[in-house]
Amino acid sequence: MATIRRLGNSTRWSDVVIHRGVAQWVEVAEDPTADPFGQATQVLQQINATLEQIGSNREHILQVLVYLHDMVDAPALNQAWDAWVPKGHAPIRACVQAGLSGNYRVEMIISATVD
Amino acid sequence: MATIRRLGNSTRWSDVVIHRGVAQWVEVAEDPTADPFGQATQVLQQINATLEQIGSNREHILQVLVYLHDMVDAPALNQAWDAWVPKGHAPIRACVQAGLSGNYRVEMIISATVD
Amino acid sequence: MATIRRLGNSTRWSDVVIHRGVAQWVEVAEDPTADPFGQATQVLQQINATLEQIGSNREHILQVLVYLHDMVDAPALNQAWDAWVPKGHAPIRACVQAGLSGNYRVEMIISATVD
Repeated sequence: MATIRRLGNSTRWSDVVIHRGVAQWVEVAEDPTADPFGQATQVLQQINATLEQIGSNREHILQVLVYLHDMVDAPALNQAWDAWVPKGHAPIRACVQAGLSGNYRVEMIISATVD
Repeated sequence: MATIRRLGNSTRWSDVVIHRGVAQWVEVAEDPTADPFGQATQVLQQINATLEQIGSNREHILQVLVYLHDMVDAPALNQAWDAWVPKGHAPIRACVQAGLSGNYRVEMIISATVD
Repeated sequence: MATIRRLGNSTRWSDVVIHRGVAQWVEVAEDPTADPFGQATQVLQQINATLEQIGSNREHILQVLVYLHDMVDAPALNQAWDAWVPKGHAPIRACVQAGLSGNYRVEMIISATVD
């Protein structure tokens, strides 16, 4: 059985799980008082930080599943996304509206390859 | 690090991402003016086309995550699904209601093995 | 192409799909007349049973994606979850509100490693 690497200190969940060269994790904005564009920008920057932490980068993202609190925020998401997504190395992406906890406006589930 | 293969020309997302023999992609109906049964049928036919494009087939699907605009359309989804799903080789499936963009009534996230 | 193992007798879906040492499946409560805490507890016990069936255990879970019928049930979910999740081996977890069929209050999509 291949090794599972878990990052993060919470007992409720791991921040990142890595198995057979694929990392998976969930991001919401560290500052949920920001507006939808600000939250999307934060989440994408947090993805960058997690990628750096695990020795990967944006060109190795496989999939991003986006949950928006309100589909009316899709243009704000796309504005932040388009400035961030690496040309020629875009992941697959699904984006649907779902209820999120607290004041979160956007939540993403990410998978990316690591060495 | 295993190679990542990306299909599709959009800068916002890839149509299909293939990594270590597993392809993942997202489908919505090409014609969203169709009713829920018509959209479900389209999406399943589009899955067939993508599978053929990547050299796979319906018997190699691992998972389908279905989002319906309205859970009242579940019988229409199931009617289209039951005519399509390969007997003895069914994927796992989850089906929940979530808000979809535009006039989409059904969206699916698919993973399947390829050579 | 690596072998795909499918468990379950439904023609509509497989109960579990196993590929390259990773099992994926979907759980809802066997008794949907239970309250949200009861349903969450059932689902987690059913995960234990599936893990045992496939020769794995809670320490090998990679990801749990939770759908709640109503986000107000998050504390009930967390109460059941915290008593169940293996310390030091927690999966990543996302939890969003989505419409579920029938009287289901919680649905989970699970992936875990197997030998």
